[in-house]
Amino acid sequence: MKKYNVAIVGATGAVGQELLKVLAERNFPIGELRLLASPRSAGKKMEYQGQEYTIGLTDENAFAGMDIALFAGGSASTTYAQAAIDAGAVVIDNSSAFRLRDDVPLVVPEVNPEDVDWHQGIIANPNCSTIIMAVALKPLHDAATIRRVVVSTYQAVSGAGKEGIEELTEQIGQVLRGEKVDPSVFAHPIAFNLIPHIDVFQEGDYTKEEWKMIKETRKIMHEPNMAITATTVRVPVYRSHSESINIELEKKITAEEARALFASAPGVVVLDDTMQKEYPMPLYTSDKDEVFIGRIREDLSTEKGLNIWVVSDQIRKGAATNAIQIAETLIQRNKI
Amino acid sequence: MKKYNVAIVGATGAVGQELLKVLAERNFPIGELRLLASPRSAGKKMEYQGQEYTIGLTDENAFAGMDIALFAGGSASTTYAQAAIDAGAVVIDNSSAFRLRDDVPLVVPEVNPEDVDWHQGIIANPNCSTIIMAVALKPLHDAATIRRVVVSTYQAVSGAGKEGIEELTEQIGQVLRGEKVDPSVFAHPIAFNLIPHIDVFQEGDYTKEEWKMIKETRKIMHEPNMAITATTVRVPVYRSHSESINIELEKKITAEEARALFASAPGVVVLDDTMQKEYPMPLYTSDKDEVFIGRIREDLSTEKGLNIWVVSDQIRKGAATNAIQIAETLIQRNKI
Repeated sequence: MKKYNVAIVGATGAVGQELLKVLAERNFPIGELRLLASPRSAGKKMEYQGQEYTIGLTDENAFAGMDIALFAGGSASTTYAQAAIDAGAVVIDNSSAFRLRDDVPLVVPEVNPEDVDWHQGIIANPNCSTIIMAVALKPLHDAATIRRVVVSTYQAVSGAGKEGIEELTEQIGQVLRGEKVDPSVFAHPIAFNLIPHIDVFQEGDYTKEEWKMIKETRKIMHEPNMAITATTVRVPVYRSHSESINIELEKKITAEEARALFASAPGVVVLDDTMQKEYPMPLYTSDKDEVFIGRIREDLSTEKGLNIWVVSDQIRKGAATNAIQIAETLIQRNKI
Repeated sequence: MKKYNVAIVGATGAVGQELLKVLAERNFPIGELRLLASPRSAGKKMEYQGQEYTIGLTDENAFAGMDIALFAGGSASTTYAQAAIDAGAVVIDNSSAFRLRDDVPLVVPEVNPEDVDWHQGIIANPNCSTIIMAVALKPLHDAATIRRVVVSTYQAVSGAGKEGIEELTEQIGQVLRGEKVDPSVFAHPIAFNLIPHIDVFQEGDYTKEEWKMIKETRKIMHEPNMAITATTVRVPVYRSHSESINIELEKKITAEEARALFASAPGVVVLDDTMQKEYPMPLYTSDKDEVFIGRIREDLSTEKGLNIWVVSDQIRKGAATNAIQIAETLIQRNKI
């Protein structure tokens, strides 16, 4: 079996560490593994499958001999993606920098695996909330053509990295001890609160996160005019994003039919037995790779509508797992 | 000024205590105040405006001489409402028992104050999430006629009373200490989790809470066929319910027009300056009487749609304040 030399840029962050975990779990055929980070972390040690690695510095010369460069996100992508490509690697990038570029495929392997074929050096990994929604929308769109999507999200603090997790824990303690809370990662206190504001505000008073869910979903689904509207909200949950999605379809689908479609869809687990109080919840979907769907109901306010409740680990399927799946898809389709 | 003899049934619970607070704040014209509760609490002492009261037992004979009986909720309503009416009191009931009965007005004073006029002894106080949504929908419906509403809620644990608050606090501690969490109030752990399940499951796999939002809103708005769909979710927040509401209208309204409508609507405070990171959040709307509206955006997925984010203290406007406002409306309209 052929092996591939893999560089991870941003190996010490939340997504970087998850990339390593997922590579190991899936037995990715790694030849040389190169862990890279910023000057702050370079020189530190990390372990992968029982072996110790020294973190290298991300720079122009860091990619020689690499087949795949997994960028965990952030500004390193724009600065060093070209260097990785020049060195002969395919870049799989988790930042938002390249996602909407016409010459860059944006891929969720359950939805548009064929788009890896036309890559020109970079394949973009979509936004976490977008990946989770796209996996859920795909089987419905194939079966009955989506007319309109209204989504409200419930997003975990780990979407803002390790600092988001620490800020929630710290603030929970401060609130319970009656101390003053002083937010730094989030715009406002997140402990026992909700913040309807993720990423910066843009056109029409939508946040960038909301625009990502709209524009990236359209690109992934090859539906440039799909009607989608989104409201994204940070919640005091450590991990896994949840989405309440209302879908209008061209063709009527019953809840039972939707359940059957989801049950046979790749990457989806149906948890939908209300008699048993079974439905997806972030606490039980974290550290898993699938997109969990429940609360599947016919929307009685319209002729051909559905309501669904979707939960998935946004660091796994929403980031690391999807990136590794893209690499696997490249291999399967002989595009690397 | 005329004074009214007021009984509070369930005075020791979360809503009961809030009823007392709101009565005092609003200087409600109370003659005699009678605090009633179940045998478990009868005989205990409570204070109102510096005076001590002994809790009486709720029974058939407890309502003699009362003008108004405020029922905080629960099974006492069905058991004792008739006794209160027979004693000559007007019952304002916070339980769900009478809300959908054709002979019982269901009132949000900002929306349908005139419905108090035809009461036959009982006026029902709507569900908390319903009240909050109705206050937000009313100005839009008056200006442009609502065609369809899609709502996803983010509901605080105090919706389940003091026990809900205690369970969240206890579980937060257990999780942070690495201990096992054993839920009793909620169906699953609520600390660092979301539970897409409030009240029991009913027809079409919708919860009773979701049906309340649909059916009660229709009754309050006098629109028996209004298209509404709802997904209700419990979140680890102590107090104030939040709602992400998508609204389709008959007539186009811009975000700016919607902001102006809300700004002049009774009981509404607009918090919507994204440049200043200003939007409603549960932490800052608790213990207040108004319905706070922000994230007001034109929904670009449809011709005449809006997205709004609505937050309000569900024990205040969602329960106690609305009940007292109903009593005030009865007085203003000489219906008591």
